Amino acid sequence: MNDFYKGKRVLVTGGLGFIGSTLALRLVDLGADVLIVDSMIPAYGGNLFNIEPARDRIRVNFSDIRDAYSLDYLVRDQDVLFSLAGQVSHLDSMNDPMPDLEINCRSQLSLLEACRRRNRDVRIIFASTRQMYGRPQYLPVDEDHPLVPIDVNGINKLAGEMYYGLYHETYGIRSVRLRLTNTYGPRMDLRSDSKGFAGIFIRRALLGEKIQIFGDGHQRRDFNHVDDVVDAMLLAGADERVSGECFNLGHARPYRLLEFVETLRRYTNVDFELVPFPSERQAIDIGDYYGSYERFHAATGWEPRHDLDEGLQDTIAYFRRFPDEYL
Amino acid sequence: MNDFYKGKRVLVTGGLGFIGSTLALRLVDLGADVLIVDSMIPAYGGNLFNIEPARDRIRVNFSDIRDAYSLDYLVRDQDVLFSLAGQVSHLDSMNDPMPDLEINCRSQLSLLEACRRRNRDVRIIFASTRQMYGRPQYLPVDEDHPLVPIDVNGINKLAGEMYYGLYHETYGIRSVRLRLTNTYGPRMDLRSDSKGFAGIFIRRALLGEKIQIFGDGHQRRDFNHVDDVVDAMLLAGADERVSGECFNLGHARPYRLLEFVETLRRYTNVDFELVPFPSERQAIDIGDYYGSYERFHAATGWEPRHDLDEGLQDTIAYFRRFPDEYL
Repeated sequence: MNDFYKGKRVLVTGGLGFIGSTLALRLVDLGADVLIVDSMIPAYGGNLFNIEPARDRIRVNFSDIRDAYSLDYLVRDQDVLFSLAGQVSHLDSMNDPMPDLEINCRSQLSLLEACRRRNRDVRIIFASTRQMYGRPQYLPVDEDHPLVPIDVNGINKLAGEMYYGLYHETYGIRSVRLRLTNTYGPRMDLRSDSKGFAGIFIRRALLGEKIQIFGDGHQRRDFNHVDDVVDAMLLAGADERVSGECFNLGHARPYRLLEFVETLRRYTNVDFELVPFPSERQAIDIGDYYGSYERFHAATGWEPRHDLDEGLQDTIAYFRRFPDEYL
Repeated sequence: MNDFYKGKRVLVTGGLGFIGSTLALRLVDLGADVLIVDSMIPAYGGNLFNIEPARDRIRVNFSDIRDAYSLDYLVRDQDVLFSLAGQVSHLDSMNDPMPDLEINCRSQLSLLEACRRRNRDVRIIFASTRQMYGRPQYLPVDEDHPLVPIDVNGINKLAGEMYYGLYHETYGIRSVRLRLTNTYGPRMDLRSDSKGFAGIFIRRALLGEKIQIFGDGHQRRDFNHVDDVVDAMLLAGADERVSGECFNLGHARPYRLLEFVETLRRYTNVDFELVPFPSERQAIDIGDYYGSYERFHAATGWEPRHDLDEGLQDTIAYFRRFPDEYL
C-alpha cells in the first residue's frame, strides 16, 4: 500500500475536518498530490489548523460539495477520491432535514455524475456510517443486518451510499463504502455539541466541566481511533479486490459509556452525572451498538491497532498541546 | 370503509395521473371532498380528461410537489393525503437523476415537514414501489426481502418511503406505505415510452403496431388492475390498525411477458417479435419478479378482484372509447 499513493492525485472532500485532515496528512507522507475540498461551514468542523504540519504541501479548494459545477471541474484527473464531506449531526438532521439531504444524498449523486461525465477511472472511498442499521437487531452488527435507519441522517446516508454501489455496478465507477462507527482522536471537532458524545465528553474533560451521561451509562458502543480509520481508508483505496464492496469498521472491544468516562478519568480530573434522556435524543438513540469488521479484516487484513485507553491518552495529549485551536 | 370517506377532506398528489385520477373518482363517489395537486409535467402522465366524469366535483390545484411553499399551505385541514405524485421512469432516473431525486426523495421529505408543521393529524398513504427490492433473491418477494435497488429511481423511492416510516415513528404522523407492482387499466398513460412495458404494449396493440419484447419473453411479472390498487389504497387509508406499516401489493398469478402479449392478442390483432435487450435497459432489468401480498391480505382482507384477462379486456374497451384522449 505504501507505494500505491506515491505520485497519485488524490482529492479529499471534507479534508479540513477531523478524519479528512488526518487522512490528508498521511497521504502527503505517502507521496500523494493532495487536493482538499472543504466548505468551512462553521458548525461542520473544518479547521485549517488541522493540516498545519503540511500546510505548504496540500492544496485547499474552498467550496461546498453542493456546488455541482466546481465539483464537476475538480474531479477531473484525480486518481483517488475520498468522499468524506458530510453533515454528521443526527439531531440537526431532524430539526432541519434539508441541508442533510442536500449534502448526504443529493451531493453524493452529483459527485458520481461528475465522475461519470469527467473521470470514470477514479477510485472512490465513501465514508458511510453505522447509523443506517438503526437499532441493532443483533450484536455485533454485520453488513447483512437489515437497514432500518431511525433518523433523517441515516436515511440520507443510506441513499448516498447506495448511489455509490449503483454507479459501480452500472458504470464501473469503482468505489468502496466504509461504514464508520464512533471515531475519536487528535483533530476531532470538540466545539460542536452535535457530533456525538465522544467529542463532548473529551471537551468537558479537558475543560474540567462535569460530563452528563444520558440514561444509565450502560449503553455499549465501539470506538475507532482516527489513525485506524485512516488505515482502513488507505487500504480500501489501494486494493482493487475490494472494489464495489461495503464494509463495517469497528472494534473487538465495546465499551459502556461509563467505561469510556472512566477511561477518560485516568488522564483528566473530570466528574460525571447520570441524567434522564432528553426526549428528542431518546427518539433517535440506537441503544447498544457494536459492529463486526470481520468481513473487512478477511478481505484486507485490517484491524484496529489502538485500544481505547492509549487512544484517549494520545488524544488528550494532542489537545493539551493546542488548546487555543480546539477548545 | 364506504362510510369512512364521506365528508372527509382528501388531498391526492399526482391526482391527474393514471392511478391518482382513478382514486379521485372513487373518492368522489364515496362522498369525499377531493383536492387534486398535479404539476401537468407533459411526460409524467397528468391528463385532465381522466377526471372528466366528475370534473365539477373535484378541485384541481396545478402545482408541483417540489414547490414546498404551496404544499405547506395545501396540506392544512386535510384529513387524508394520498401521496402519488412521482417520477416513475427508471430509465429517465438513470439518464437525468436529479429530477427523480427532487421529486421522489426531497419532495416527500418536504411534504412530511409540511405535515409536521401544519397538520399532524393527517393520515397518509404513500404509493411506493417494488423497485426497491432490486433483483429478487427469492420468489414471491415479501416485505422482508433485502432492499437492493438497482437504479436511481429505486434508491430515491426507498429513501422517500423511509421518511414516511420515520415521521410515523418519531412524530406520530400516520402513514401506510404500499409497494405497487405493475399496474394497468383505464386511464393509464399510453403515450410515454418510459413508464414500463405494459403501457407500451397496450398502445401498440391498439395502434396495430408490432410489439417488441426484450429478451426471450419468459420473464415473469405480476399485474394489478388499477381498481384493485385503488381498493388497497382506500382500505389502507381507512384502517387505523395498519398505520405505520409497509405492504406489498401483487397478484397470486404471475404471467410471463409472452403470456401477457398472448392475452392482449385475444382482444386486439397485435403481432410481436423477440429482440435482444438494449444494454441500458439490461443494466436495470430485475429479471423475474412477483410479490407476496399475504401480509396486506392478513391485515385488511384485500385481494385482487381482477384477473389479467378480463382486466385487459376492460382496459382495451376503455381506450377504444376514447382514442383521441390517450393515443
